[in-house]
Amino acid sequence: MDFSSKLLENAVQEIAQLPGIGKRTALRLALHLLKQPLEQTDSLSKALLKLRAEVVFCAQCHNLSDSEICEICASSKRDKNVVCIVEDIRDVMAIENTGQYRGVYHVLGGIISPMDGIGPQDLTINSLIEKVKHTEISEVIFALSATMEADTTNFYIYKLLFPLGVKTSTIARGIPIGDELEYTDEVTLGRSILARVPFESSISKS
Amino acid sequence: MDFSSKLLENAVQEIAQLPGIGKRTALRLALHLLKQPLEQTDSLSKALLKLRAEVVFCAQCHNLSDSEICEICASSKRDKNVVCIVEDIRDVMAIENTGQYRGVYHVLGGIISPMDGIGPQDLTINSLIEKVKHTEISEVIFALSATMEADTTNFYIYKLLFPLGVKTSTIARGIPIGDELEYTDEVTLGRSILARVPFESSISKS
Repeated sequence: MDFSSKLLENAVQEIAQLPGIGKRTALRLALHLLKQPLEQTDSLSKALLKLRAEVVFCAQCHNLSDSEICEICASSKRDKNVVCIVEDIRDVMAIENTGQYRGVYHVLGGIISPMDGIGPQDLTINSLIEKVKHTEISEVIFALSATMEADTTNFYIYKLLFPLGVKTSTIARGIPIGDELEYTDEVTLGRSILARVPFESSISKS
Repeated sequence: MDFSSKLLENAVQEIAQLPGIGKRTALRLALHLLKQPLEQTDSLSKALLKLRAEVVFCAQCHNLSDSEICEICASSKRDKNVVCIVEDIRDVMAIENTGQYRGVYHVLGGIISPMDGIGPQDLTINSLIEKVKHTEISEVIFALSATMEADTTNFYIYKLLFPLGVKTSTIARGIPIGDELEYTDEVTLGRSILARVPFESSISKS
């Protein structure tokens, strides 16, 4: 692309470095900002800089936080003895939105993925093990995605936790609520038959 | 969405004000910036602010420009007697990329669109008429999109130019190069038959 303005070219190049945003979209966004009041661009760029410069990781659960201990870990209403292992802050938000969980989290910061060069040492696994060793934890819940890499990560952590004798569980896999059986993939359907639960327990949980 | 960090929530809200970007995408972009070095966020926000604060409209063609007169209008290689009317800077870039045009531009800044509350007074039409009146213009080329609103705008400007006796033309409409006839829409195909040109001229142009 041949820009008549270096300022515009610069801005487009910077925006286009964001994932999933090409040069055309970047140009559209830049032209949009030009049509809006200066204040909008001002508050956008300040919010980005402030986020990048000031956000920290919670010292206890490694979630993104504005202070040293995040709101969830600092809350007296949360059960500190139950720890839910998740991949990143989006999963924390997803579980929080259900309103079904009263424990705390442990954010791994990713999953083991040799293809992307992410090994166990790049995640917060050590900190989890130390936490289980030195504080009273009654249950560790695995809540990673249902992918191959996540299963590997689950198993890796499970092997480290097993000698410590802590109770572990994993979130239930099965047919999503509202889904029709005939459109469910075979692996999910097959596992949901093998992992069937007593009918009474399915009533009490819903 | 329930954010554990006010800084993150703020940044996501600001990003999500951009057109075509929802809250989920905004969160993905914010988390991406957090994983990159501080310098990237810094140069992104500086480029946006600088663009918004410093870019101006060329005093002659109303294109976005870094200086009072844009590079194209200031160039001694361009034919100032031929003016091409376009909607916005993207159309200038598209025509410049063809390498086929040596005249200058006149950027309208939009097209007449009563549905969006854009009338002739919101565009740079007056400035175009003054330019044609007071400088030597040999030809005005209409190069707006092939839509209903653009045709209205073309016709509105044509009516104002006609009494001034300047030569006007419009870019050719027809079958795009490389397109197969059977997949071309009927309106385009019908018009391309009505607007057929002598075979010799089609050879010399290609």
